[in-house]
Amino acid sequence: MQPSEPVQPSAVVLSAVEATLAEFLGRQRAELSGMEPRLAATVDRIAEFLSGGKRIRPGFCWWGWRAGGGRAEVQDCAPVVRVATALELIQACALLHDDLIDRSETRRGRPSVHRAEAKAHADAGWSGDPEHHGASTALLMGDLALAWADDLFVTGAGQLRALERAQPVWHAMRTEVLAGQLLDVITTADPQSDPLAQRDDALSVIRLKTAGYTVTGPLLLGAALAGAGSQLVERLRRYGQAVGTAFQLRDDLLGVFGDPSMTGKSAGDDLREGKRTVLLALARADLAGRSSSAALAELDALSGTAATAAEIDRVREILARTTASAQLEQQIDELVGTGIQALAGLAPDVTDALRLLAVGAGTRER
Amino acid sequence: MQPSEPVQPSAVVLSAVEATLAEFLGRQRAELSGMEPRLAATVDRIAEFLSGGKRIRPGFCWWGWRAGGGRAEVQDCAPVVRVATALELIQACALLHDDLIDRSETRRGRPSVHRAEAKAHADAGWSGDPEHHGASTALLMGDLALAWADDLFVTGAGQLRALERAQPVWHAMRTEVLAGQLLDVITTADPQSDPLAQRDDALSVIRLKTAGYTVTGPLLLGAALAGAGSQLVERLRRYGQAVGTAFQLRDDLLGVFGDPSMTGKSAGDDLREGKRTVLLALARADLAGRSSSAALAELDALSGTAATAAEIDRVREILARTTASAQLEQQIDELVGTGIQALAGLAPDVTDALRLLAVGAGTRER
Repeated sequence: MQPSEPVQPSAVVLSAVEATLAEFLGRQRAELSGMEPRLAATVDRIAEFLSGGKRIRPGFCWWGWRAGGGRAEVQDCAPVVRVATALELIQACALLHDDLIDRSETRRGRPSVHRAEAKAHADAGWSGDPEHHGASTALLMGDLALAWADDLFVTGAGQLRALERAQPVWHAMRTEVLAGQLLDVITTADPQSDPLAQRDDALSVIRLKTAGYTVTGPLLLGAALAGAGSQLVERLRRYGQAVGTAFQLRDDLLGVFGDPSMTGKSAGDDLREGKRTVLLALARADLAGRSSSAALAELDALSGTAATAAEIDRVREILARTTASAQLEQQIDELVGTGIQALAGLAPDVTDALRLLAVGAGTRER
Repeated sequence: MQPSEPVQPSAVVLSAVEATLAEFLGRQRAELSGMEPRLAATVDRIAEFLSGGKRIRPGFCWWGWRAGGGRAEVQDCAPVVRVATALELIQACALLHDDLIDRSETRRGRPSVHRAEAKAHADAGWSGDPEHHGASTALLMGDLALAWADDLFVTGAGQLRALERAQPVWHAMRTEVLAGQLLDVITTADPQSDPLAQRDDALSVIRLKTAGYTVTGPLLLGAALAGAGSQLVERLRRYGQAVGTAFQLRDDLLGVFGDPSMTGKSAGDDLREGKRTVLLALARADLAGRSSSAALAELDALSGTAATAAEIDRVREILARTTASAQLEQQIDELVGTGIQALAGLAPDVTDALRLLAVGAGTRER
């Protein structure tokens, strides 16, 4: 087997996802234009937003399907691709609404949708408050994406006669990601002061909001479509939990220390918003353990209040002087290892693909 | 047949909806508590919000089912009740998100959810901006309700083996209500200046956002579950379009001239937000036709900028002096008549129930 081979099926799947997405959005555009011509532009903007995605979740869904014994010929698996595509629409909703919650300025290297819509409103000289108009539009675009995700899922799983076994996985995944976002909002507003309790909260948010929904959910959804048994499901869940957590810890590091031109997101959004990340919790624990009470007090005072570039830089500087990054790097390595171990016994092509994805989740450039 | 009889089955359906809702939310509460105990409170708040509903949509769904020949014994129709209950969850999402978009202070006679959550945040002395926290929480509660609605719909329609024929109706209904909300946002920001073009826009919003989703969608959903034929569907669509429009025109009147203690909403929200209602368009057309250019200019200047009680009262006063209300009252009567005419040929109990609901939509006290 050539070393490049495992990537091949993924590329075929991803191009099938693009085609399915284009076809689906084209039909929605026609439907909304028919209701009222001015609505077509909204579908175009949803399509544009979706065009920037990396299709991580559809990929995991496909490999869950293959792990469960689903056939390998992508062209014969349109319903699986449909379900995989549904995940991109859920992701669009999650990002649109998350950016509202986090007041993010940029996303996927472009202005966030609520910002772009606010600017369009102001540029056109429309009536009312541009910011509020932008937020309302992004909110409704997210709702449309969430509703449409269900349509793709239900029809895809229905064609496979797998709806009954896939529906509970679909339900759990969507509930978990929303529960994770809620917990994120709650723990940002009302953080526990003990650093370790705060770290555990951050890990709970990751488990629900990222690991479950980015890796485990898509994998188990694909596996459910294929009718996978409980032993395999357990193995995929172990992989997903570990790799999904590694993915988010890397994201947290990149969110603070990453290059915006690579990540597509503004640097320091998490710091500005006062996100209680694992990184922050480990830094606080480190400072507390070293009795660096002045730095700890300064960090706590700046968490969620830092607004200027200088203040964000100062938080970054305090974090960089702790062992937090090094601890996270080690945890990421361990988690990727745990994930890869869980793959023992899977078919060689599935193992190869999921191993590559695990390594990518831990080290990826975004 | 006793004149009170048609109401009876509705009451049985509605109590079955309450029981289904309580059971479903109880299971979600257990699920979210299991993820993280602090999340249980969110489900409680969703349940509390849902407790104030009038269950209009589940009622129409039931009568669509009965019109389509579905059996009359509610206790044997748990899957239909499940789908009817799903409509209440969509409605919860629509209201939670609509109140964010309209910046409404009250809903169902209580503070709107984003306001209540903001107050709870401030009262607890949590960190960050209370208003933003309230908006984020209401946004996510709406998302949960939308996702859960799908779960109820899919399992209910699946149990009836009616998913394939009901899914397109479900898809159209959710897409239409969101398209209507989007059009509402667009036409509020960028209204057409011609009064008649503005009235047509307002009617398009009503057709999509209210008539389709409050009456036609639920009716057709019930009919699809029962396997209704195209002729019946056409008749129900005619009824739904007329009665749903009457419902919204009455709502618009009550929103301006109604008593908040009856409607459960703040008076003048529409005026404050600059909603381009049919009422406003007719008033503008009337003023333009009578060459009352001073009043028209004052009305236009205050639309969307009126903030104080005195300014709202002034808009109300200008509107009251036009023929707009009288025109709307006549249109409501005609629409209710059109709706009732469309019922010809339906079974007597269905006709009686839908006639009562039509009259209620036009005259109801809210």
